[in-house]
Amino acid sequence: MDDEFRIVALVGKFRSADVAESVMRMAAFLAGRGLEVWLEAGTAHAVGHTGAERVLSFEEIGEGADLVIVMGGDGTMLTAARALGVHQLPLVGVNQGRLGFLTDVSHEEMFERVGEIIDGRYLRERRSLLEIELWRAGECIHSGMALNDVVLSRGEIGRMIEFELRVDGEYIYTQRSDGMIIATPTGSTAYALSANGPILHPRLAGIVLVPLCPHALTYRPLALAQDSVVELKILGERDAMVHCDGQTIFEATLGDSIRVLRSQQGVTLLHPEDYSYFNVLREKLHWSALPPQLN
Amino acid sequence: MDDEFRIVALVGKFRSADVAESVMRMAAFLAGRGLEVWLEAGTAHAVGHTGAERVLSFEEIGEGADLVIVMGGDGTMLTAARALGVHQLPLVGVNQGRLGFLTDVSHEEMFERVGEIIDGRYLRERRSLLEIELWRAGECIHSGMALNDVVLSRGEIGRMIEFELRVDGEYIYTQRSDGMIIATPTGSTAYALSANGPILHPRLAGIVLVPLCPHALTYRPLALAQDSVVELKILGERDAMVHCDGQTIFEATLGDSIRVLRSQQGVTLLHPEDYSYFNVLREKLHWSALPPQLN
Amino acid sequence: MDDEFRIVALVGKFRSADVAESVMRMAAFLAGRGLEVWLEAGTAHAVGHTGAERVLSFEEIGEGADLVIVMGGDGTMLTAARALGVHQLPLVGVNQGRLGFLTDVSHEEMFERVGEIIDGRYLRERRSLLEIELWRAGECIHSGMALNDVVLSRGEIGRMIEFELRVDGEYIYTQRSDGMIIATPTGSTAYALSANGPILHPRLAGIVLVPLCPHALTYRPLALAQDSVVELKILGERDAMVHCDGQTIFEATLGDSIRVLRSQQGVTLLHPEDYSYFNVLREKLHWSALPPQLN
Amino acid sequence: MDDEFRIVALVGKFRSADVAESVMRMAAFLAGRGLEVWLEAGTAHAVGHTGAERVLSFEEIGEGADLVIVMGGDGTMLTAARALGVHQLPLVGVNQGRLGFLTDVSHEEMFERVGEIIDGRYLRERRSLLEIELWRAGECIHSGMALNDVVLSRGEIGRMIEFELRVDGEYIYTQRSDGMIIATPTGSTAYALSANGPILHPRLAGIVLVPLCPHALTYRPLALAQDSVVELKILGERDAMVHCDGQTIFEATLGDSIRVLRSQQGVTLLHPEDYSYFNVLREKLHWSALPPQLN
Repeated sequence: MDDEFRIVALVGKFRSADVAESVMRMAAFLAGRGLEVWLEAGTAHAVGHTGAERVLSFEEIGEGADLVIVMGGDGTMLTAARALGVHQLPLVGVNQGRLGFLTDVSHEEMFERVGEIIDGRYLRERRSLLEIELWRAGECIHSGMALNDVVLSRGEIGRMIEFELRVDGEYIYTQRSDGMIIATPTGSTAYALSANGPILHPRLAGIVLVPLCPHALTYRPLALAQDSVVELKILGERDAMVHCDGQTIFEATLGDSIRVLRSQQGVTLLHPEDYSYFNVLREKLHWSALPPQLN
Repeated sequence: MDDEFRIVALVGKFRSADVAESVMRMAAFLAGRGLEVWLEAGTAHAVGHTGAERVLSFEEIGEGADLVIVMGGDGTMLTAARALGVHQLPLVGVNQGRLGFLTDVSHEEMFERVGEIIDGRYLRERRSLLEIELWRAGECIHSGMALNDVVLSRGEIGRMIEFELRVDGEYIYTQRSDGMIIATPTGSTAYALSANGPILHPRLAGIVLVPLCPHALTYRPLALAQDSVVELKILGERDAMVHCDGQTIFEATLGDSIRVLRSQQGVTLLHPEDYSYFNVLREKLHWSALPPQLN
Repeated sequence: MDDEFRIVALVGKFRSADVAESVMRMAAFLAGRGLEVWLEAGTAHAVGHTGAERVLSFEEIGEGADLVIVMGGDGTMLTAARALGVHQLPLVGVNQGRLGFLTDVSHEEMFERVGEIIDGRYLRERRSLLEIELWRAGECIHSGMALNDVVLSRGEIGRMIEFELRVDGEYIYTQRSDGMIIATPTGSTAYALSANGPILHPRLAGIVLVPLCPHALTYRPLALAQDSVVELKILGERDAMVHCDGQTIFEATLGDSIRVLRSQQGVTLLHPEDYSYFNVLREKLHWSALPPQLN
Repeated sequence: MDDEFRIVALVGKFRSADVAESVMRMAAFLAGRGLEVWLEAGTAHAVGHTGAERVLSFEEIGEGADLVIVMGGDGTMLTAARALGVHQLPLVGVNQGRLGFLTDVSHEEMFERVGEIIDGRYLRERRSLLEIELWRAGECIHSGMALNDVVLSRGEIGRMIEFELRVDGEYIYTQRSDGMIIATPTGSTAYALSANGPILHPRLAGIVLVPLCPHALTYRPLALAQDSVVELKILGERDAMVHCDGQTIFEATLGDSIRVLRSQQGVTLLHPEDYSYFNVLREKLHWSALPPQLN
């Protein structure tokens, strides 16, 4: 055994007891390998934890653990990544159902794969995070992080919001639409894809802007270099919502500015050695080795 | 005056006498500034040149000139860029009609703008070039360069071709379609845009793959890091065509492989100091400062 | 003068004094032509009416007037059309700003064009209306009409709703998405167009379904024969909103069914004799007589 | 047994011996039911027919048979439909591989399903055909029929053609593009779908125009009433190709007009009683009863 990972923290699906058995079996497996096992506090609560493992906050895990195993779906990974992004410790995603883009170790193979990883056999991959700030009257009133995307969108009443797009301080256009998705390569296969955005390979150092139902036909997804600073300034009177990874949410109003840029931090994912980004994509999108047939 | 540029070569629209007057007035303007002016041979022939300027090939210009002024549309620039890509000399594009993406100095302002540039007031920008090789039975039988795009497409009879996509040697998918566009950021606003591709900012170090009428609904434009090696292997029996920038053309057949990667060379463009990429885009796509109205 | 139209009602932009002058000048113009002029009550209030014209409700106008002149934008026409759809009287749309799809008489030409129409020189066109019913626990709890579209969409929190689509009672699919637009040909150039829907000519007897950001890549706009009955049944726990023409709104919840079908009623529009549907489209979409140029 | 169908003709996959066994077993099955069996001449030749069945041309089949059973894929059905469109006899499609949109009886169930149909248990459906004429210098130099689509497209050299679109004699726009698909509802799920066209239900009395890579961003698929006359006039100097159902092909050149309208004839398809158009669509497009998951 490699000594790289001595303390391994487990994070389970948010407020869900579904993963209780998996989490406790994984804890036992890791303890059997001589590792110290920590449980994230919310997870411990959700699974009704009564065992010997230490229960710690995301903050404490970020400071003290060597590896985090996330057990749930991509949503669980998004939460963990945002919570742990400022720390440098690596994450492994174990899917409890259908394979996810971020949780690429299957439930069936979890002991074998996690075993390999703690033995030092893994691929290390770096994913970008976005930082977002909401500015109102010269003051930053909200800030957040996103691994997938920051989404500005209309509220429930009415259809359209109006905003100005600036990139690196330069005015680009004024748009009326249902909103705008600002996605990392990781997020390009999530919500942005259903809004007709392109797929950005994680190794591409970029950010993609995908408009939501724009009220003119000449807007297209726009991929920028990752060091670009994107600003959306709300012009219309209708309130708008800002989501990070579809999970945290702020309200934005006339005159507010949403500022999005790539974080200095990023997320480190560990994958089994035979991991392939394209393989996940191929399975998710049903790309086939056989020529597909429409008729 | 700066001595950076002592020898300036002029390249005009291919086989066209339309630009004769502009070319000769530009030659006189540059000579009046004390510069040595060269004429590209095809241009000299097309404009019926009889003056004192030296007439030289692209090869000779590439080796000896300090600056090239391209007078025509984007098509003229594409030709010049491919011909001069292996050399390091910078290009300025002067449009003879409507402003182009690559020919961003207007006819009306050409003396003022070119004057500023030879005085050393300009923005320097680097654009990627693609290299393409067509392999058949273990041998490279064609090679070429592209500033915009390499396009694999069906021939005129029948609708679909079938090919395999590999990236960095890894199998990605088999596709039946009318073809595939492999574009640089520069090319992302050309043919790829009309095939529903995203816009890639020139500072984004990427390559984008845009399928042409794929025979399944789950293919999407795919943006890769620029150091990716893209291969398309022809599977079907129908002949396929390969275009570089819509100008040079090869035929490809069953078993052939098209290998596309970013060239070590690139193209250096000089722009007036107030140049803005987004400004050109905004004009071309009619993005507006006023919120657009569908109804 | 034709005696077809003896009583003409005027409807102005909702709660807006902007059209006050136009409305009163139109009233005077019509009175000068010997016609009886009525004012819609909300309009009279908004324009601060103090004149001699009779002030009546939409209901009374629907029963007694021979012609309605709508002065505003397409939104004003949508309101009038829904309010008057059950009656048979024809509508003329006079745009106060930029020409609309439904308000195709310009402010500048309003007296000339309206004069021609009351002289009997016009094109008569029939547009479909949709009827919508919201069913909950076996009871119809809301109903409404739409000239453009019925839109089922997510509320402000979270991204997706889940629903089942049935056509003529047959199960078609289950979708997770931001929602679904069900549009008439009239509505195909409104919100549906910005969601990537096709254009349906008004003479095409159809209804089009356009998904909003569907969470799978194989959904496409679906155009049905106009006698089809469309049902959307809410499956997910998240509340959904139902809009008619972006103006009236209901909330729908788990288990609710939205039933949409073509109304027995329709709307009759009168246009000047040189009206052309494609001409409006060409202007709105900037289709050009000259071949457009991307580069 | 019903006496509706006394003479049944068999048509197999074009120039293919693959269906020989199926065709001969079907012939025997029908003869065993007391029916007279005819073989289409090309089919008889391809399968190396030596039996007692009469061998006849499409023309003769069209005049004398009561029912045609088409054994192959959708391509075989397209050929048979165009060849037999002027006659009134109904077609049944038996797929030899994966189910097609038009060949909806599977190989496995072919005797059971065909037996039911000849017993009079079937759904009868009418599908539109398009007529096309190519006019040059005042003369119609080619004409043809299409069940799926008429496609105008660029030849192999160069990318774009330029043409004018007229509908019912009215000028609509000038387009530069790779071409235009004019599709029936039947064809809306074939090539038009891969060019981003909408799905038109067969009961919708319409024609849809789908541009191929148009050189401007504001063109959209356009669905017209089925009695519309569509004309495309070639403006550019580059030769263009015209395909009917991807099978027959003409060349068109500067000044030529392609005129497309719905044929007075149509095609009658017979389906098993449990046939569902949406069921075929759902299988082909992988629409699912379970909510799909991108992540």
